[in-house]
Formats: sequence, structure tokens, C-alpha cells
Amino acid sequence: MPSRKIFREITLSGIIFLMFFSLQTEWAGAEDGHRMWLRYDLVSDPVQLHQYRNLFRDVVAHGSSPTFEVLLEELELGMKGLLGESVRYRASVERPGTLLIGTPDSSDLISSLGLEMKLRELGPEGFLIEQMDVGGVNSTVIAANRDIGLLYGVFELFRRMQTEQDLVGISHQAVPRVQHRVVNHWDNLDRTVERGYAGISLWEWGTLPEYHHPRYREYARFNASIGVNATAINNVNANPLILTDHYLEKVKVLADIFRPYGIRMFLSVNFDSPRRIGGLDTSDPLDPDVRAWWKEQVENVYSYIPDFGGFLVKADSEGQPGPHGYGRDHADGANMLAEALEPYGGIVFWRAFVYDPEQSDRIREAYDEFVPLDGKFMENVILQVKNGPLDFQPREPFSPLFGALPQTNTMIELQVTQEYFGFANHLAYQGPLFEEVLQAETYARGEGSTVARIIDGDLFEYSQTGMAAVINPGTERNWTGHPFVQSSWYAFGRLAWDHSLTAEEIADEWIRMTFTNDVRFVEPVKEMMLISREAGVNYRSPLGLTHLYAQGHHYGPAPWNAQHGSRPDWTAVYYHRADEEGIGFDRTETGSNAVEQYHSPLSEIFGDPNRVPEELLLWFHRVDWDHEMSSGRTLWEELVYKYYEGVEMVRQMQDSWNHLEGLIDEQRFDHVKALLTVQEKDAIRWRDSCVLYFQTFSGMPIPEVYELPKHSLERYIELEQELYIPRF
Amino acid sequence: MPSRKIFREITLSGIIFLMFFSLQTEWAGAEDGHRMWLRYDLVSDPVQLHQYRNLFRDVVAHGSSPTFEVLLEELELGMKGLLGESVRYRASVERPGTLLIGTPDSSDLISSLGLEMKLRELGPEGFLIEQMDVGGVNSTVIAANRDIGLLYGVFELFRRMQTEQDLVGISHQAVPRVQHRVVNHWDNLDRTVERGYAGISLWEWGTLPEYHHPRYREYARFNASIGVNATAINNVNANPLILTDHYLEKVKVLADIFRPYGIRMFLSVNFDSPRRIGGLDTSDPLDPDVRAWWKEQVENVYSYIPDFGGFLVKADSEGQPGPHGYGRDHADGANMLAEALEPYGGIVFWRAFVYDPEQSDRIREAYDEFVPLDGKFMENVILQVKNGPLDFQPREPFSPLFGALPQTNTMIELQVTQEYFGFANHLAYQGPLFEEVLQAETYARGEGSTVARIIDGDLFEYSQTGMAAVINPGTERNWTGHPFVQSSWYAFGRLAWDHSLTAEEIADEWIRMTFTNDVRFVEPVKEMMLISREAGVNYRSPLGLTHLYAQGHHYGPAPWNAQHGSRPDWTAVYYHRADEEGIGFDRTETGSNAVEQYHSPLSEIFGDPNRVPEELLLWFHRVDWDHEMSSGRTLWEELVYKYYEGVEMVRQMQDSWNHLEGLIDEQRFDHVKALLTVQEKDAIRWRDSCVLYFQTFSGMPIPEVYELPKHSLERYIELEQELYIPRF
Repeated sequence: MPSRKIFREITLSGIIFLMFFSLQTEWAGAEDGHRMWLRYDLVSDPVQLHQYRNLFRDVVAHGSSPTFEVLLEELELGMKGLLGESVRYRASVERPGTLLIGTPDSSDLISSLGLEMKLRELGPEGFLIEQMDVGGVNSTVIAANRDIGLLYGVFELFRRMQTEQDLVGISHQAVPRVQHRVVNHWDNLDRTVERGYAGISLWEWGTLPEYHHPRYREYARFNASIGVNATAINNVNANPLILTDHYLEKVKVLADIFRPYGIRMFLSVNFDSPRRIGGLDTSDPLDPDVRAWWKEQVENVYSYIPDFGGFLVKADSEGQPGPHGYGRDHADGANMLAEALEPYGGIVFWRAFVYDPEQSDRIREAYDEFVPLDGKFMENVILQVKNGPLDFQPREPFSPLFGALPQTNTMIELQVTQEYFGFANHLAYQGPLFEEVLQAETYARGEGSTVARIIDGDLFEYSQTGMAAVINPGTERNWTGHPFVQSSWYAFGRLAWDHSLTAEEIADEWIRMTFTNDVRFVEPVKEMMLISREAGVNYRSPLGLTHLYAQGHHYGPAPWNAQHGSRPDWTAVYYHRADEEGIGFDRTETGSNAVEQYHSPLSEIFGDPNRVPEELLLWFHRVDWDHEMSSGRTLWEELVYKYYEGVEMVRQMQDSWNHLEGLIDEQRFDHVKALLTVQEKDAIRWRDSCVLYFQTFSGMPIPEVYELPKHSLERYIELEQELYIPRF
Repeated sequence: MPSRKIFREITLSGIIFLMFFSLQTEWAGAEDGHRMWLRYDLVSDPVQLHQYRNLFRDVVAHGSSPTFEVLLEELELGMKGLLGESVRYRASVERPGTLLIGTPDSSDLISSLGLEMKLRELGPEGFLIEQMDVGGVNSTVIAANRDIGLLYGVFELFRRMQTEQDLVGISHQAVPRVQHRVVNHWDNLDRTVERGYAGISLWEWGTLPEYHHPRYREYARFNASIGVNATAINNVNANPLILTDHYLEKVKVLADIFRPYGIRMFLSVNFDSPRRIGGLDTSDPLDPDVRAWWKEQVENVYSYIPDFGGFLVKADSEGQPGPHGYGRDHADGANMLAEALEPYGGIVFWRAFVYDPEQSDRIREAYDEFVPLDGKFMENVILQVKNGPLDFQPREPFSPLFGALPQTNTMIELQVTQEYFGFANHLAYQGPLFEEVLQAETYARGEGSTVARIIDGDLFEYSQTGMAAVINPGTERNWTGHPFVQSSWYAFGRLAWDHSLTAEEIADEWIRMTFTNDVRFVEPVKEMMLISREAGVNYRSPLGLTHLYAQGHHYGPAPWNAQHGSRPDWTAVYYHRADEEGIGFDRTETGSNAVEQYHSPLSEIFGDPNRVPEELLLWFHRVDWDHEMSSGRTLWEELVYKYYEGVEMVRQMQDSWNHLEGLIDEQRFDHVKALLTVQEKDAIRWRDSCVLYFQTFSGMPIPEVYELPKHSLERYIELEQELYIPRF
């Protein structure tokens, strides 16, 4: 409640007016973030508005498909919103200022424009937007080979209008860099969302198939607008019941709603389904009954969803069943499913997120398990590899599997939901992290062998390519909880379409579409977003430290955590290994030698404490507390410096944001402002907990220039027990 | 997705227009139920609109308090919405058509009107709305002793305008019948909601106290509009951490937001808190350290919330700790807390929902435990008794505790959330159930001793009176999941204010406020609402049967359920006791003799199988399958008849609803339509499961006039296992 001064006599109509407006906003929920980046408010720059109105006086649209119908809806919504004018449709191009939309198949006009050469390059999903002469009339043309390309073209056009770009003389062709642009939901059938933080699951299993919640279509639309073309809607820790008719009837409804938006349905399946729901006594992938059972299930799924995408599988990972339980390997397991799916054009996303409590170094495991299997997977299998070898930490090196599997289709799995980044409470734009890994140099085929060139199939000529991201939308009105988590979802889609975009370009687009084109807002917010990931690294685990979380919830710090059941790799001390002499995990030849999993010269660079990037120093090396850093500071001093810098960066974000009051709506301004306060509080807890804890080993002082820790280490350890972290 | 025919050439601008509108509605969420019964759309009847505009041309409002500020906001919102005109404030009454609002303390004008006598009757919360002469000018006056009364008056005025009632010559005085009108939330600190079904908890513990979600104020406003003046925001299965400073800082923010709306904050506490978070080794209520600890906690709570209401306690109930664990009784436990709260004006709601696995008849327990304690509770304790002796079943007799505690303040606990009524999937307006129990005759002081007269303090002169309801609002956009669950929340508030209202009157108000005043809609929907509870009784457990649910989730049928751990009273067979000879629970002298807990002549009536209302027959009696019913049918035939009638009533509701298309917005129409389809499906499952199961005992046929069961009993038993019931 604003602490407004109360008043006795009502003569101040201005105040009343103000109150009314603020109340109206609240009740109406006008700027509650629900529209995300597709707000389509009237173009605010009068020059651009004038230009767009002149460019799009008429529309000639030729097409006939559910996708085309969606396109027409979008066109009306966008033109009405951005230009304040309904679309005026014409049967043919009659005057300058016409937007012509169609495919060569649906439109004679399009096929008469001599675009064959260009269209051939565009494939099934690409499009072009071009200003050109159409029968003597200067027009804007959106053309593609299929209607889904046209829909992507309309979204691209509106993106440019939302960001107020000059459209005169536009000539743009776009083709997605990877085939499968997939969002993953870790949604359980009880509607809890693992690592979700934005309410409960979007999918109302209790009212499906009867009730079609409006949000299903809204969800599909947002994804289509950034080029996402596939979704796996249930948790990889999969409930086998998803394959029963009872659930398939419900999944079918969602698939039908998503289809016009170009989005294919995938399901996560439980490898043990034959035993759990099939009445078999084994799930051995080489057992003929098991293979027959899966074929039956696949046939059944396709009877509901003729264009079903395939299965996403987490097997032999964190307690999930898999082929190892039957003495088989990942290829045996994946290929069994791939064989069943193959006749229907379905594919298998087989996750490479595996690790073994018996391994001396957890991060070695995936490479050690999968590299020997290279070449053994069927063509319709794609290995889905997390960006780093551990688990979505604030910073990791790229996974050495990228570059080590020349004969196995390999895609990347990124995380939009902020499992390790402060849930929906912290501002942590993931664009810089995504860019960092995509642009990482693997040296797999010499210089220029970036991760991006591997996953887009360029380097190894993969037959199937893809990028996946674990997203978190739930029933929260603004979809993602923290308004800025939307930006990472947006960034994922944009990078999956075109990995050459920079995090900065994408942030610029997103801010303009989501908030305003006012540069007084755009520039400082972009700066905030671009430092936000590094801030999160600094106040949690700088210099290559990792996984200092309290176990289970992955929110707050517990670097002291030394026990978690029988799994040393679920503790914090397993990773930092601090003692009186030093800190860090030796992954060189004298240690686990995980550096050998990288190609030369990276293996040598990572293996040398004086050449490794300092941001990964303690990931690969165990060094003394007085190890000299490039700054001239000792390791201890640098560590303290980084932790304090993390908090300062949050304060810098707070300060920036607080200066923006009035430039956007009060509702979202207040929300982000409050969340930044939470973030500052949490960042201090992280910093103090870690610095005080590591100090018990280094025995060195916190330099006097820094503010004192807020509490003692003992109090911070108590706090970890007292704070009850909501699952949501 | 509407299966609209696709089209090739765009010349049908009408279709485009239609599509745009439907899309706009979806994206804008205009009629998503979020506004509940306070929609304040323009008055649709031109005659009434004209009248209201003439009556309220000017407003003179005198007051100064946060509550008065809220009143002014509401006034602007309502007048702007209902009349399409902003409020014109004047310093004094100048011309006819003035609305004058104030208390004698804040307004000399009000105190000059000679309303002293009337105001004396109104107490702290009452109000009057009267058309009268004010200094020679015909005006409408809202007067009260305190600003909260004025706020209630404004809501009453708007209710009448929303329902388009004639306001000329209005003369209305209103005083609430009970003091404490309390909503209970079973919200856990992890934001799950026990028996919630409408998303997760409203309270964002993770972002409090920093972030003040707009919904907190909206929530308070809805409650105030129906006279609710207290809320207990956390689950009665209480996490002790709620009393830590960490949480109290957060609770304080909510209390501050609710306060201007006249809503007092209560908290559910865990009886074992002294041990669990206090570091004591006992929670014995007679232990001096324990008593001192609670006094400290209370002092601390009041330091955050000076007008804190008190504690709600579930003790020695379903595994919750309580005084019995220390050999003490409920009075010892409640009085310890009451003593701590008493200096601050706080009170204890002590729940009487207790039962014992050792008891031969579960429903006897609460009476047997509490009646001997009558007179032993402090004056600031109120026993909170569920409407029936079991647990919110579709139908129960009233709890015999009503009428058996002349010296113990006793309030009623009702359930709005549909734990046993199909969650948020079924339409089941609870107004008729509430009315049934409130108007039930207890004969405690002879004829006319209704439950209502007991809980309003009239019969036994209780010093504290109250009504509570367990409500379910969560993060779902429409608050309650099923739009019609809103109506039961509304009905609770209205009845807590005035228990003489009928369920029908309340339904009429609610429909008009929530949907439309169009009688073509109002009348059939009212009819649906009024039969909906009885439909739910019939397809689940007619004729006094009860608790035939699958355990745990309380959604679907499992009359065959015979085992649930070691608790026979958590099975279904415990309640129906069907065998080849008959069915029902003998609660007469030959059985558990629970009938003796009722006053004469009810005990005799309930005890006689030929005089007991047939709707309670099997609750009190075990009878043969061929027992003759008043209809002339045998018991078996009557049972089958009722089950089939239940499904038919759902179909009748479906049919009524489907005829209403076009009279309200598409969004809510489609939602309810789909949910009624779910309900029909579930009702059939209930009917078939029960009839087929009981048939295995009766050995009698299902008369041929009825449709065949959809599946076999075996399949229904399987289905119960296959269906995975979402917790949400």
C-alpha cells in the first residue's frame, strides 16, 4: 500500500483522479506482463507511425490453412494495435502501400514475382520480406514456401514495427539455423512444476480434454513469434501414465491447438513404462516384447497426433530407469525408441545428462559414457547435451561432448528457468550465458569450430539439428514470475533461429517490445541485463567455483554443505575442496584429468593454471590461497573482491532501475523494484556466507575497504535452516 | 480451437472482424472472471441508469482514515463503472441528487440529521442508507458509526445498483448478525494449498515483505464487499515457522494491506511450537515455561500487528499435536493461548474437528470430548465446529455440538472449497447446504432453536460469535477455479452478515452481479445453482450414505475402499457397512447410539427409521435392501433411482446452460460448458461405481428403465487406480 497521506475533505479531485487510475490499473491488470513481448501498443514515434501507415494501407493475403488463419488473426491484432487501424483487405494489388502475403502455391501473384531462386534457399520454414515492384506498384512482400514461413514473416515484420525500425526498402531473408527449436517443460501430471517458480503447470489435466483454456493458444502464439517449433510438455522425470489413452486424449487437444502455430508435440517418456504400465516384467530394450510394446504405443500416439514429434528421454540419470538396468547401453535404449518412431518421422531426444556417484569426478561421466557410443545411434536420434558438463551452473565451461561426437546428432539444452539463478526472484538475463557457450571455441576441427557450428550441423553434417531450453511458464499472470525471465525465453527462441545474434541485440529488441522504445529506458535496462548474469556468478561462485547451494532447493548458499545422503557429488565441499592450503578441484593430469576431454590446444590451456581463463580457474585447478592473480591480488583477495563486486553489481542494477520511475507503467516498475531489493538481500547472504566460510580455511582477513558481513557465519548457517524455501 | 471452416480468399471482412474480437477477448482476458461479483459494468437498464444518475449527481463525503480512502476509491470505481461518470464531489449538499456519506464524528452534517437513535442500534460495523431531507434537499444518506460501516454501506448501495433495484425512497439499516466473519485458508508455507484447486497460494512468501502483489488488495476488497472481517491465512495443519520474525515481517505487510478493508489478521498455530521452534522440551499447556513462551510470542506478534485477531488452532486432530499429548484437555490448551492473547483483545478459534481411531463411531467423538468441557473455556475462546459431525460431506445432519454447549462460545465452520464436491470441476453452489444447516432445528431450548440462533448468540447469549468458511482462492485468474465456486464464497459472506437470507436470494444477487441482469439468464442459472448441491448428493451418496471417496484425494468414487493403513474410519466400508442383508450405519440404541447426542424430540425422530428424514436414513440406520421407502420403492430401488437422478440433474444443468449461449461472454460460457461436460462424465462414474458395487450385495437388478452402466465394476475399480488426480 502506498503510504499516502490521508485527508479530511474532498476537494482535491486530482488526487482522486490519481487514485482511480492506480486502482483501475490494478483491477484491470493492464500492465501485468501477460502480453509479454507481443504488446502491440500504438507506435509511439509519429514519423515511424506515418511511414508504417503508408506502407500498409492495403493487404493482399493469399492462403488457406489453419496456420494462415492464425496469420490473419495476428495481422489484424498487430495492425489494429500498432497502427490503430483495422486491416483493409484487397483482392489484388491496386495502389502503393500494399502488403502482399503468400506462397507460390497459394498465390499466383507471388509466383509471378520471380522469387523462385530466393525461395529455394528458404526451405520449409524460412521467409523473405522485401519491398518490390508488384505489377508496377511498390509493395511490401512477405513470401515463403509454406504458410508457417509466412507466419514467421509477419512476426518479424511486427518485431521491426514494435522496435520502430525503418521499413523503407526492406530486404530480408531468414532461415532458421537449426531444425528443432524445442522448449522443454518440467511439468508433472499433478501440475507441480519441477524448478518452475511461476505457479503451477499450464496444462489443466483435470479439465482436459473438455476445457480448452485460452492460455494454450496464447502460449503457442508466443512460442511461434520467436520461431519455437516444438514442445515437450511433461517433465523428463516422466510419469509413465502420459502414454495411457486417458492422457493422450488430453495431449491431443493441446497438439491440435499448437499445430497451426507450427509447433510439434513431443512427450517425455519413462524408460520403464513397459513394466510400469505395460504389464511386462522387463523393460530391456533388446527384449522382443518390449520392442513390440513400444511400437504399439507409438502407433497409438500417432493415432491421436498424426504429426507427433517424438520422445524426450532422461534415462539412467538421477534415479531414472534406463538401459543400464538391463546391461544395455544408451544406444540400445535410444535406438529401440527410434526404431518405433522412425516409420512415422518421429525422433528421439536422448538426454546426455548422466553422472555416477562412483565416478571420481562427476563432470567426466557424460563424456566417458557417450563418446565410445559415437556412431551407434540411429539417424533419428539426437543427443541432448546441457551447455556445461555439470548442471546449469551460473558459469561452466562448455560440455566437452560438443566436438567429441562427429557421428552422433547432437543438440544443446539450455535453461531459461532460473534453477540456480535465484528462481523467479532474481534478475538474471541468460542471453550472455547462451552467447558465451554458443560462441565457445572447441577446436574440434581447428579454429572456428564453435559450439554453434557444431549444433547447427555445419561442422559434422548432422542429419538432425536442434536447440532446446527448459522454460518455466506457469499459471502466474506474467507467465514467468520475474518479468525478466521472459527475456531469456525470448533470447532462446531468437538464438535457436539465428545463433549469430548477440545477447545485446536481443536484449534491445526485447526491452523495446516488452516495455518501451524510450532510449532513456532502453539503454540503462540493457546495461542491467548484460551485467546481470555476471553479477549472479560473482555473488554465488566466482572464479570457477560451483554448486555451493543448499541442497534440494538450489536457492540459497550452503558452501558448508558436506553431507547429502550417500552422494558426495550432491554436496558443496565436493566441488570447492577448500582447506587451509587452498581451494578448487584439480582436473589436470594430477587430478581427475577432465581437461583431457577437450581438444588441443584447449586441453593445455585449461590445464595450465596460468593460462586458463581466470573465470574458470577453480573449476580446473586447485590453487593456494596466495596464488597470484592477473590483477596482482592473491586468490583470497580476488575471491573476496568478486563476491563483493557481485553485490555491488546488484546495487548498480537497483540504482539504475530506481532512476527509471515514470518511464514505464507503475505496476511492472514496482514489481521489478521490489524484486531487486530481494535480490540485494539474497546477494549479501550469498556473499557473506561464502566469504565467511572460506575465511575459516584461508585464515586471511576481509580487506578493510569492504563493508562488514551482516551476520556471523554461525547465524548464516542457522538461517539456512530457518528459511523455508517455497517450492513455487 | 473453434473448428471454423478455412477460406481461401479474404473478402469476408465480417469473419475477420469476428475472429479479431474473439482473439482480443482472449488476449485481453476481459471476461476471465477476475472481477468476480464486483464487475461494475454500466447499468444496462436505461430506466434504472437514469434514476441512479439523478440520485447521485453530487457526492458529499466526510471522513479521514485509510478505510475512508478505500471508500473513496471504491466510490469512484463504482460510479465510473456503473454510471459511466466520475464522482462530482461537493463540500456541502447543494441540490437534489446528492449522496451524503459520513459518520457523526467526521461530519457535522450527518450529526445534524437526528440519526442518533438509529445509529445507536448499528454498532461498530452497521450502516444505514436512507433517502431523506438534508437541509431542505432530498438526498441519499449513508451513515454509520465508523468508517468501516460506511464502506459496507457503499458496497450495499453498489450491490443494489448492480442488481438494478429501485433506489427511490430507500430506507435500509443493516447490522451483522455475528461478530467474527472469518475466512480460513488452508495455505501452506510452500505455497501449496490443501484442498485448494485454484492454483497456488495467494501469498508470495518468497517475495514478501518486499513485493506487495496487487492481488492482496483485490482479495481484501472482495472480502470487504461481502462483510468478511477476518482472515486466517495459513493452513490449520500449521507450520510452526509462521511465528518466526522471518514470517511475521511478511504477515505484517498483508495485515497492513487488509486493515483499511476492515479485515483482521489471524494465524493458525502449531500447538507444538514451543518444542519445535522455541527450544523447549515440552509444549505442555500447564508448564510455566511453555505459558511464558506463548506470552512472548503473542507480544512479538502484536509488535508487528497491533490489531492482530488471534490464533486458529487444530489440536489433537488428524495427527496434529495438542494438549492430550501431555495429559491435558482442550480447555487447558485453548485457555493457555487465550490467556496470552487476552490483554491485547485477541481471541482463540479452537477447532472441534476431532476424532479417534479407537472410537466405535467416529462421528460421536467431538461431542463426547467437548460437552464435558462446557463452561471451562475462557471468554475469548470460540469453539469452531464444522457444520456436520463428520467432515464437509455433501449431506450430513447438523453437528450435535450446536445446542449442547450453552456455556461455551460456539461458531460454525463451513466449506466453500469443494473438497468433497468435485474440486474446481463441478458446479455445486453451497448456498442450499449452508441454509439447510443454519435453519436446522436443534430443539436445544424448544422449538425455534435453530443453529443460526445458536451461533449468533441469541439462544445462549454467547459473548463472542462467529462464522468461518474454508475458502480456496489461489493464483488462478478467476480466483476459485470453477467460476461458480465464487458463488459459495459470496454466499458465505452474505450469510455471515445476515443468516436470514435465503440461498435463492443470494444466488439471484450473485448471478446478476457476476454475469448479467438478463432474466433469460438469471432464472435458469438460479435454478441450476439451487439443484446443484442436491445433484452432487444424489450421484455420490444419497439417502444418508457418506464418504464413499477414494482416499487421499476425495474426488472420485471408491465405495469398495476397505483399507487405509490402520484407520478403519478412513475407509468407505466403515461408513456404508453394506452386506447381503442391507446397508447403513446403525446409530440408534442398538448401534453406536449417536442419536442420543441430539435433543428430544430429534433424538427420537432420528432414531426411528420410519420418521427420520429419508435423506438421512442410512446415516442413522442400517436397513434391509427391501426396506419400503415413502415413494413405494424398496431401498435398493430408491438408491438406484437417486443415483440415476443425480446424473439426470447434471444433464438438466448442462441442457439449461447450453441454451444460454450468447446471453453472456463467450469466455465464461465456454468454460462452464466444458466443466459441465466433465461433471457429467464424473457423475456417471460415481453412479455406476456405486450402483454396481452395492449391487454385489443387494443381488438385485438395475431396473430396465435406466441406461446401462458404461463400464463393468472391475473396469471402474481399475479406473480408480489409473486416474491420477492432480493436487491442484
